[in-house]
This record gives sequence, C-alpha cells and structure tokens, in this order.
Amino acid sequence: MDMIDVIRTKRDGESLTEDQINYFINGYAAGAIPDEQASALLMAIVWRGMAEDELTAWTTAMISSGARLDLASIDRPTVDKHSTGGVGDKVSLVLAPIVAASGAADPMLSGRGLGHTGGTLDKLEAIPGFRADLDLDEAVRVVREVGCVICSAGPDLAPADRRLYALRDVTGTVESIPLIASSIMSKKIAEGTGALVLDVKVGSGAFLPAIDDARELAETMVSIGAAHGLRTSALLTAMDAPLGRTAGNGLEVSESFAALNGAGPGDLMEVTLELAREMLYLCGLDADPWDAIAGGGALDRFNAMVSAQGGDPHAPVPEAPEREQVQAPASGFISRMDARAVGIAAWRLGAGRAKKEDAVSPGAGVVCLKKPGDEVAVGEPIFELHADDPARFEPAGTALAGAVSIDPEPPDPCPLILERIRP
Amino acid sequence: MDMIDVIRTKRDGESLTEDQINYFINGYAAGAIPDEQASALLMAIVWRGMAEDELTAWTTAMISSGARLDLASIDRPTVDKHSTGGVGDKVSLVLAPIVAASGAADPMLSGRGLGHTGGTLDKLEAIPGFRADLDLDEAVRVVREVGCVICSAGPDLAPADRRLYALRDVTGTVESIPLIASSIMSKKIAEGTGALVLDVKVGSGAFLPAIDDARELAETMVSIGAAHGLRTSALLTAMDAPLGRTAGNGLEVSESFAALNGAGPGDLMEVTLELAREMLYLCGLDADPWDAIAGGGALDRFNAMVSAQGGDPHAPVPEAPEREQVQAPASGFISRMDARAVGIAAWRLGAGRAKKEDAVSPGAGVVCLKKPGDEVAVGEPIFELHADDPARFEPAGTALAGAVSIDPEPPDPCPLILERIRP
Repeated sequence: MDMIDVIRTKRDGESLTEDQINYFINGYAAGAIPDEQASALLMAIVWRGMAEDELTAWTTAMISSGARLDLASIDRPTVDKHSTGGVGDKVSLVLAPIVAASGAADPMLSGRGLGHTGGTLDKLEAIPGFRADLDLDEAVRVVREVGCVICSAGPDLAPADRRLYALRDVTGTVESIPLIASSIMSKKIAEGTGALVLDVKVGSGAFLPAIDDARELAETMVSIGAAHGLRTSALLTAMDAPLGRTAGNGLEVSESFAALNGAGPGDLMEVTLELAREMLYLCGLDADPWDAIAGGGALDRFNAMVSAQGGDPHAPVPEAPEREQVQAPASGFISRMDARAVGIAAWRLGAGRAKKEDAVSPGAGVVCLKKPGDEVAVGEPIFELHADDPARFEPAGTALAGAVSIDPEPPDPCPLILERIRP
Repeated sequence: MDMIDVIRTKRDGESLTEDQINYFINGYAAGAIPDEQASALLMAIVWRGMAEDELTAWTTAMISSGARLDLASIDRPTVDKHSTGGVGDKVSLVLAPIVAASGAADPMLSGRGLGHTGGTLDKLEAIPGFRADLDLDEAVRVVREVGCVICSAGPDLAPADRRLYALRDVTGTVESIPLIASSIMSKKIAEGTGALVLDVKVGSGAFLPAIDDARELAETMVSIGAAHGLRTSALLTAMDAPLGRTAGNGLEVSESFAALNGAGPGDLMEVTLELAREMLYLCGLDADPWDAIAGGGALDRFNAMVSAQGGDPHAPVPEAPEREQVQAPASGFISRMDARAVGIAAWRLGAGRAKKEDAVSPGAGVVCLKKPGDEVAVGEPIFELHADDPARFEPAGTALAGAVSIDPEPPDPCPLILERIRP
C-alpha cells in the first residue's frame, strides 16, 4: 500500500477502506509514515469528512494501537461521562462520587487543560498530595475499592490518538467533527467503561458554540459508541455563562466540596444530576442521584477517592494571595456573562497553561459574585480575581471588558439541558 | 504571524493576504516552517483554490526566493515556450532553433522527465558530450552567442518552488491548478524571458486529460503572466496519440534532426510551427518559421547550440541493441493510439526514470511504425520496441495491450491545435 494513494483517495472524496485506515493509523503510530503525509490526510478529512463505516474502522484502529483497561474485576456496572469542555465545569468532581455512591462505578480517565477551559486533573491536583498520574493497574484498583477514580489516561491508551492530536494541534486540523469524535471515543472505549454519557457543551464558552455543530458531534459520538457495542447517550447542555460561580483550580475544588455537601449552585447541580440520572439509566439502576448528596454518600466517596490517590481531603485548599474586584459599569439585571471571556481571564490569572509543559497555579481564578439574572447596582463588584502575582490582573481585566451585559429588565431564564441524544 | 492562523485562513475558505503568503513562502524556503504545516496548507489550497490576487502574490514570493536570469545583454527579443508534457513531445528541440534562426532568442530552462512523459534534457543528453547543467552565466552566454539554449533550471531559480514541489509530490497535493500554474510560471518569470507561449496538452497522454481542466490551467497561467508583465499566450494542443513517431531519448533526437532537415512527421511540424508563429507574433517579428527549416537556419542553430553545450552534433546518436515488434491484432484503420500507454511502454523500456536519482537509457524507447489513420493488415508490425535488455519487452508489451483500436473505416481526422488563449 502507498500513503500517497491513501491521501488521494480521501482528497478525491472517496471513502478510505479498512485496510487503508489500518495502514495509516498503525504506520503513523509506529513512526513509519511522516508527519507531512499525515497532515495532508488530516486536512483532506477536514475537507471531505468521514462516513460511518470509515469512522468505525478509524476508531477501532486507534483503540488497537494501545492497551485497554481491564475492568473485569469490577463487580458493579461501569459508566463514565465525558464533557467537551466548558468554563467552570467541575461536574466530574461531583458526578463520579455520586455515581459511585449510587451502585455503579466510574473509571474516569481524564485530561489536563489547554486554552480557556480548565482540566479536571489540574483542578484535583490543587488538593495537597493528589496524584493524577496512576498506572492502569492502580486506576483499576481505585475503582474497585472506591467505586470511582479520576486520573490521567496515561501514554498506553490509544497512543495513535495522542500522536495525531499533537499533529492536529499545529496543522489547523483540530476542527473536524469526525476527527474530534473518534479522538474522544477511542480513549473512552479503550477505557473499558460499560456505558458512557457525553456532555456536549453549546454556546459562547463551548469548543463548538453552534448547536447544530454540537448536535452533529453528539450524534457522531453516539453512533461510534453504538458501532463499538458501548451504550452511549449524550446531553447538549448550555455553556453561555460559567457553570457555578468559580473558574480556577482550587476555587473549583472548594465549590465542588460545597456541592457534595448539598450547597452547590443551582446550575451546577442541575447539570450534574441530569448527567447522573442518564448514567444510572444506562446502567439499569433505579436510584435518585440526589440521595447520594443528601445522604452524604457522594462526599464520602470523593474523600475516599482523594485519599486513595494520595491526597488529603481535609487539608486546606490553596488560595491565591492577591485579589482584585471588577465592578458593575451600570445598574440593572445581568443578562449575559460570556463564559469564554471568564475562561480566558482565569487562564491569564494563572489557572491555565499556554503550553503543555507550563505549570498552573492552584489558587488563581475568577469568582463570579453575580450571575445572569442577578440584579446589580453600578459600582457593585461582579467578579473577584485571584492571582499569585498582581501583574496578572490587568490582562485578565482586559479579557473581561464587555463580558457582561446589564439590562433594565430581568432576562428570561435560559434552559441548561437543551437536548438528549440516544442511539 | 502564526502559521496555524495561515492554515486556518485558507482552510476556512478565505483569501491569504500578501503578508501571509510571504511569511509562508520565505519561512518554508528557509526551513523555518516544518513540512507538516506546509502540507496541511497545500491540501487546503487543493480544496479551496486561490484567487487571482493570491496567485500573483504567491508567484511573486516564489520568484523572490531565488535568482533571476539577467538577459539584458541579449540584443534580440526573448521568448520561450513551456509544455505541460506529452508523449513523443520533442517540440522544444526543433522549436528553439527555429526561433533563434528567425530573429528572436530562446532562453529555455527545462527539466528532466519523471513518469510517463519524457524530459527534454534527458533527450538532449542522448547526444554524446551534451551538458544540460550549465550555470546561469553560461546559459546567458550561450543564448547570446547562439540565439538559444536548452539547459536545466538549476538550484538558484525559484528554490521555494523546488522545495514545495518535492513536498507536493509525496503528499497528494500535485493536482491543483493554481499550484501547478504558479510552479510553472514562477520558474518561467525568473528565467527572464520577455514573452512566453504555453503548450497545454489535452487528451489521454496529458497531465490534465480533460479540455476544461487544461483550459483553466492555461487561462490561469496566462493571467499570472499578465499580472507579472510577461506577454503570455497559450495553445491547447491534442495529446491523444504520441507526437511524431518516436518516444525515447535518442530516438527523439534522431526524429528532431529529421524535422530540422525538413523531413519531420506532419503532426510534429504542425504543432511546432504553430507554436513558433505564436512566439514570433508575441515578439512582434513578422517571419515565417518554415523558412528557418527550409533555409537550414534552424539546423545550423541547433548544431551550434549542441556544440556550445559540449555536445557533438555529428556523432552517431546511441541506439539500443535489442528490438522487438508488436503486431496488429486485426486488419483495418488505426482509429486510436493511446499516448499514455506508449509513454509508459517507453518508460518501462528504460527511457524514463521511476525515482529522481535513476539513470535513463539513451537508446531505449518505442517507434510507432503506424499512426492513427494508417491502414494495417493483421500481423503487420505497429510498434518497434528498443531496449538495452530484452527482459524489458514483456512489461512494455503489457502496457501496450489495448493501446490501439483498429476499425474497418478510416477515422475522421482530429485537429491538433484546439484553442488559442491570449490575455
């Protein structure tokens, strides 16, 4: 087989055969196919898309390039959630313990943040001692003993995806629904979970802001799941404003503790509980996820998970020493709070990284003192910025300029759960 | 500037700015932009195309990446011809001397063959002693003294195009009309010629077989020429059957000598003289190119050029020792002779190369004993194959299976000169 023919096939709008896909994925993972041929193929896929059969074969090849988690020793139904990423999205920290306390188990292999959306592992690593880098055996042991784990996917799962993602990142080929869908699903299928719920974000703070794109991505992932025998469904959820009141690693851990103690903000709880219901439904479990909060089971599972991963759930969460407030420029009702702007502000304050190698600050971030629907008076603080270094405030403040609209009338409430997609 | 933004601009269907184009071409020529980003951009260009302004800037940047021939010392109008490549296309060997004998000068920088179409330099190098690799000063001196030169473009002209072409060759991004047009035109403009006639081939043996594609390529090149102040026109000429009766290096040199002596085959002479007329027209010269043949001036200029480039025009042209004939499978009139099949047969006999580093045989090739329109009896020879090694005959014969159609009635004559495109 010849790589130039593979590129030409896709360039000319034809479907790649299973043999061509295996040849490419295996050859690229092994370093036998050079980056310049791979990136030409990726751009041709951005252009031409992939048919369902191709996507199934492509995902299978990526899974086969690495190891799979063996969850045979888990005696409960397994189910996981994956989010396409949002600002203030600490859902995983509350959700995995709820699921564990409700009779299922969640083997959540997750990632670090890059860009304006935070990473779940960065958040957990704000807890003193917490280790996100477990090997696959350790991860399985924590799931078995605690009922949930949240750790890094490591280098063994779908290594072809890891190489391809790094290449897509520098060649303008990230924005392709089939490539995004197969990248996510290959890792989740390799993770070995028995069921999967996708939280596909829609709106200004989402990776794909338009609902049509989000729906297409959700349907594509649900269909890849079905083709691989994985019970998969998806919720489209709103990501116009930050979820909850905080964006930043330690700040979000503290808000998650509040949520596990039954004192979480309404939007965070609504999304978390709806995802939990869908996960338990896929497992065939007839449990009300709220009971895990009200009865303390979820908090207990979270603490057990943190301990099992080397962290101290009772240690104080680090806080940044420097604070600055951003005031309301007018009086009225907040009708819009741009999630992306808040995410970029948190990132510039030190919560996120510009390059993969950068360290993140555990304490930096944004607290939303007000949220859409709230009434404010001119000069009243809307945001509180936290940083290790006061020099961070100016660029963060620039990101927030124009991020909030204030109207004389209260806005209509916006739904958070937009659509549910099942196979 | 960021290369990922440049890629995204084109990927999303927008025009590249002049700054973006200069950033890419200069960065890639200097090795500062890696191949994987360049190939992603090239595939996006195959997808989205380039607008006229972009193409002008792209071509300018490629020319500026290297040297330009300085033809100020030539006291005659300069004019060149470029062909998109055909089988048996020895037009350059006859045409450049005609132009030189008709009052103009032709600084023809040419290339070697790759694939089923032969290269002009490979043909001339069949002449004992002939040197195609002149430096730019030598090339100018030969034009000045002889009136024409046919030599390699060398590494100094449009080096960005050289790097880009090598990349396109391995990434499935050759087949883009703007990229083909700018590649050709950047070299021809850097060559410094005052006028240019393009011979764009159409038909089964052409690089772009369909007339619509050929016309688009011709119009694109004529428009690039106009934007750069180069008087440019194009002829679309038929390349369904081989031009003349030979395909192969030494065989074509011998046929060119016959043509320069007034005994060339009709199709070769028709195309050559029409191109010559267009070239002289662009120079404002009112000369009949046939006079250069009839009066012996063209042969004299050819011999002078060969001598100036180290060759012996009177030395016997090498012949391959092994011969085999291919017989007519039926009686009747030849209605079709597939140029591409004849080209591939000549290539397999040793006339062409599979890799850039390969050597070619000076003697190998195909002689067409019959041409379309000729009457044949079953068993009568149609082709004579020449090779250094008889093991070459079988693969060459395979290429020729089905290459000829024989009908009971004589075919309608097909025009050779299909269209003329001027700015």
